[in-house]
Amino acid sequence: MASVYTFLGPEGTFTEAALLQVPGAEDVPRIPASNVEAALDAVRSGEAGAAMVPIENSVEGGVSATLDAIAGGEPLQIIGEQLVPIRFVLAVRPGTERQGISVVSTHPHAWAQCRTWCGENIPQAAYLPASSTAAAGVGLLDPAPGHQAAICSPLVAQQRGLQVLADDIGDIPDAVTRFILVSRPGVLPAPTGADKTTLVVPLPQDHPGALVAILEQLSSRGVNLSRIESRPTGQFLGDYFFSLDAEGHLAEERVADAVRGLHRLSPGLRFLGSYPRADRRGHTIPRSNQDEAFLRADGWVRELLQVR
Amino acid sequence: MASVYTFLGPEGTFTEAALLQVPGAEDVPRIPASNVEAALDAVRSGEAGAAMVPIENSVEGGVSATLDAIAGGEPLQIIGEQLVPIRFVLAVRPGTERQGISVVSTHPHAWAQCRTWCGENIPQAAYLPASSTAAAGVGLLDPAPGHQAAICSPLVAQQRGLQVLADDIGDIPDAVTRFILVSRPGVLPAPTGADKTTLVVPLPQDHPGALVAILEQLSSRGVNLSRIESRPTGQFLGDYFFSLDAEGHLAEERVADAVRGLHRLSPGLRFLGSYPRADRRGHTIPRSNQDEAFLRADGWVRELLQVR
Amino acid sequence: MASVYTFLGPEGTFTEAALLQVPGAEDVPRIPASNVEAALDAVRSGEAGAAMVPIENSVEGGVSATLDAIAGGEPLQIIGEQLVPIRFVLAVRPGTERQGISVVSTHPHAWAQCRTWCGENIPQAAYLPASSTAAAGVGLLDPAPGHQAAICSPLVAQQRGLQVLADDIGDIPDAVTRFILVSRPGVLPAPTGADKTTLVVPLPQDHPGALVAILEQLSSRGVNLSRIESRPTGQFLGDYFFSLDAEGHLAEERVADAVRGLHRLSPGLRFLGSYPRADRRGHTIPRSNQDEAFLRADGWVRELLQVR
Amino acid sequence: MASVYTFLGPEGTFTEAALLQVPGAEDVPRIPASNVEAALDAVRSGEAGAAMVPIENSVEGGVSATLDAIAGGEPLQIIGEQLVPIRFVLAVRPGTERQGISVVSTHPHAWAQCRTWCGENIPQAAYLPASSTAAAGVGLLDPAPGHQAAICSPLVAQQRGLQVLADDIGDIPDAVTRFILVSRPGVLPAPTGADKTTLVVPLPQDHPGALVAILEQLSSRGVNLSRIESRPTGQFLGDYFFSLDAEGHLAEERVADAVRGLHRLSPGLRFLGSYPRADRRGHTIPRSNQDEAFLRADGWVRELLQVR
Repeated sequence: MASVYTFLGPEGTFTEAALLQVPGAEDVPRIPASNVEAALDAVRSGEAGAAMVPIENSVEGGVSATLDAIAGGEPLQIIGEQLVPIRFVLAVRPGTERQGISVVSTHPHAWAQCRTWCGENIPQAAYLPASSTAAAGVGLLDPAPGHQAAICSPLVAQQRGLQVLADDIGDIPDAVTRFILVSRPGVLPAPTGADKTTLVVPLPQDHPGALVAILEQLSSRGVNLSRIESRPTGQFLGDYFFSLDAEGHLAEERVADAVRGLHRLSPGLRFLGSYPRADRRGHTIPRSNQDEAFLRADGWVRELLQVR
Repeated sequence: MASVYTFLGPEGTFTEAALLQVPGAEDVPRIPASNVEAALDAVRSGEAGAAMVPIENSVEGGVSATLDAIAGGEPLQIIGEQLVPIRFVLAVRPGTERQGISVVSTHPHAWAQCRTWCGENIPQAAYLPASSTAAAGVGLLDPAPGHQAAICSPLVAQQRGLQVLADDIGDIPDAVTRFILVSRPGVLPAPTGADKTTLVVPLPQDHPGALVAILEQLSSRGVNLSRIESRPTGQFLGDYFFSLDAEGHLAEERVADAVRGLHRLSPGLRFLGSYPRADRRGHTIPRSNQDEAFLRADGWVRELLQVR
Repeated sequence: MASVYTFLGPEGTFTEAALLQVPGAEDVPRIPASNVEAALDAVRSGEAGAAMVPIENSVEGGVSATLDAIAGGEPLQIIGEQLVPIRFVLAVRPGTERQGISVVSTHPHAWAQCRTWCGENIPQAAYLPASSTAAAGVGLLDPAPGHQAAICSPLVAQQRGLQVLADDIGDIPDAVTRFILVSRPGVLPAPTGADKTTLVVPLPQDHPGALVAILEQLSSRGVNLSRIESRPTGQFLGDYFFSLDAEGHLAEERVADAVRGLHRLSPGLRFLGSYPRADRRGHTIPRSNQDEAFLRADGWVRELLQVR
Repeated sequence: MASVYTFLGPEGTFTEAALLQVPGAEDVPRIPASNVEAALDAVRSGEAGAAMVPIENSVEGGVSATLDAIAGGEPLQIIGEQLVPIRFVLAVRPGTERQGISVVSTHPHAWAQCRTWCGENIPQAAYLPASSTAAAGVGLLDPAPGHQAAICSPLVAQQRGLQVLADDIGDIPDAVTRFILVSRPGVLPAPTGADKTTLVVPLPQDHPGALVAILEQLSSRGVNLSRIESRPTGQFLGDYFFSLDAEGHLAEERVADAVRGLHRLSPGLRFLGSYPRADRRGHTIPRSNQDEAFLRADGWVRELLQVR
């Protein structure tokens, strides 16, 4: 457990809610960061022991800022993940009523997910973009706020004493965001039998079948993917890296062997950690891909090379 | 050529610059739309004949709003693409000087790409987010603007009579954005020998090797990919669709055959069009994947089934 | 049904037993051929309507003479297959006793399969090679035979009035040979739901991953193989063709599509027929590989190309 | 070098010719064996240090007897290979003339390859099968031979003082046979940069895509095959093992890694040796499959698992 945490702020975001799900995080300092890069840099510099940042949303997809920030710069390591259901509330200063709302503020992503509800329930309200849902909520406490209502997390409403006029106003019932807890590279969390390994794999440039070759390194060891995202390297159009979550832990032979294979094809590969899955879901591994099969195969070849 | 175009507005964005690259577009009405969805809906409803929207940026990656908006709703068809180099200028009301800039406004993506230059050249300036680079530029003409400078495209500066204090201030020299021209489904543009086919392929849910199986439908016909993006369906974490650009035209046998194979595996497949590549780059096709090989194979099997 | 059959002779071989399993074959002329090539040539010339020849033995493997003879020359077509359990008997002229056997004769393959029994039961007997098991049996009837016992099929013993001293003397209990019935090319037997398609695929010469590419044409349509044999072309070492049995009938879309793919990679491909499996074993085809999926995919692409 | 060699006899066969190509073999005892199994058993029992046996013929294909005998029983190891051009001569007792030949004898395979010449040049001659070409040649020296001519190797004619009536009478000009030199398992011959590795891989029974999975273990490490043969296990129809020659030496990382992968899928795998290619032909290995890439990948993963 870190002695100081940072997270994508401001206070009261879903990211802080994710951090509060980490055992013990409630009892140590939690420093909000103004953006993902800043949160990760605080970890890199040692100001914070670990950072909680969003990586994937069931509605919006991968969080590019996080995918890119963690793929470059000084190496970091993912040590855990948290799933947070995304529940939006319509918050106001105590006393405000629905018909008094002429401007509603929130982050554009949240706005996209609550537009239907707002169209039906506060059709008179204009939309004012905010840099985060929490900023919209906190802004209500300004001496002269430009808006009368905020769409934000239940946490920020509770932290700031705002009144909740309507709960669970998102259009998509089961929206969930996945967050990762990031530290400096260190000892890997022990395998639990239900783990995930995150990798950043630059696509070798001049080779069109390269993605198939990369996937083959995984499939030939029976390693499944639970997430794959392509991201531009920023160099030129069509120059990608892939951000992958593979099922299993680097300490498992099949994962280590697949990672070795990926390293051969793409030596700029970045290993971002092996850590327990938030959903604790393990899966059955065919005998030929179990550790024992790898160790027996290894011992067998070793013997052929030595004894003979 | 459409008689009315729409584009992701406001006026003066890079998207309008892309539209102006289309022969004849200069001479017909160009209606800015407030967001990608609105631009596409104007096409769906018939208000506009075609819409220009951004789809991919060499720095930021795929444009999620476009990828998602075109993947659902009433079917649309991509009929062309344009590449626009992204060149940012620092624009002010005529007469403003650099030291007079205390607030600079632009879209967050543009801000991310000009932060280094601004830190070195206008370190005193605070940042005010805008909904687009053009909005930031146009906003300078407000009676009482909240900012003194805008980071925007050369086009908007020129259109609005703004003064360019500094040109080409982005951190990344060769940034380029790819835009697509979208119409209602109709006759496919004729093959040119250097074409692209865009597809939306939902990943069959319960099948971990599904992506490999999908890529195999392409590789077994020698069809290369020039872009692959995973996007969440919005249903639940890990439920994806893929947005693909394949090299070649549906009227080429190898592409048609690969698309048939994809349709079998993923019947919810959406075909978004075959159209000329902006870079006009063709490529050599091995004999076994040329149209003639497909037609000969087809004729051969047909004969076996009929004559015999 | 043919009006004249030929088969790999002489009379009384397991091949004739296979032919007698064909309904109606008992009632028409059956002409023994001295070798596989001669049997097939009798069909090619029209002397016989169809020929029964061995193609595969569960102990000895593929019958090279048949694989090679049918892979070249004037095209032929397999219209059926028969499985015959290989049961060897020790046959003698009536009156001969075991201790009187000083020389035993049979075909070398049969000898290989009965050596254990002979070593234990007639250890005193020397071995004399014969050109077939039937020739060894028939040879006992010579005025002055060079051997006193023959290892042959029950059929030849019965046909020639030989005495069976011991039955079922093979070392391998469930040995079985597969025979094919070959005609001139004509209408394909109708699909039965449990069919086989036999193909001869020359391996494109200068391409080491060629076999994988060929197998991919089958796997990408979900077509399984029940037999694969490599055979030399006779040109130079390492120059192969493959003899394949694929599950399914050419009239099934997935098979036709796979065969088209093979034809592209290896235009010298030879189609040897689709015919009912002797074991009548059908198998479940995943929905995405069923005819309907192919037809729907085909119709979908056709519509994209025409209507639009 | 062995102190005693055995080979598939009798004396004067092409197999002895292959053995005589081994440096030093001329100077030590060479014991002919009556069949391949016997030759290999002499090595297993220690009677001979090594055995030369045929494995593959450019016309006839794999030598089943050798493929099967070496795939089972006490383990053996291939330590070298020899290529011998197959040149047939028509040999007679001195003084015999062409028109005096009424019966010609040879091994059936040789007969198949000289039939055209014989049909044109000694059309009057009947064919008498022999157990080997050498046996046919030696048989001419019997007091009362049943034949007047033999088709055999130049070696046997020379060894036995036979007269060569016609040289190089085979139909196929460049026929060549490959022979292997087999010893008890021991130290592997050192890698030369142009080596071969021979493997016996039982096909896992209940898995139709098994062959593809096996080939993928090779292709994912860039290991090419120079030979692949399917052989029945003898258990039931459709139950195969594969006999493979892979390019490279087990001491090369890519080969060792591929062999480990094969062992996982098919633990009954048999390694039959790594040895120099007779043709000395090396080949270029892409950087990602070179030893260094494997070692770097291995070191990289090791470090991730230890340091961190």
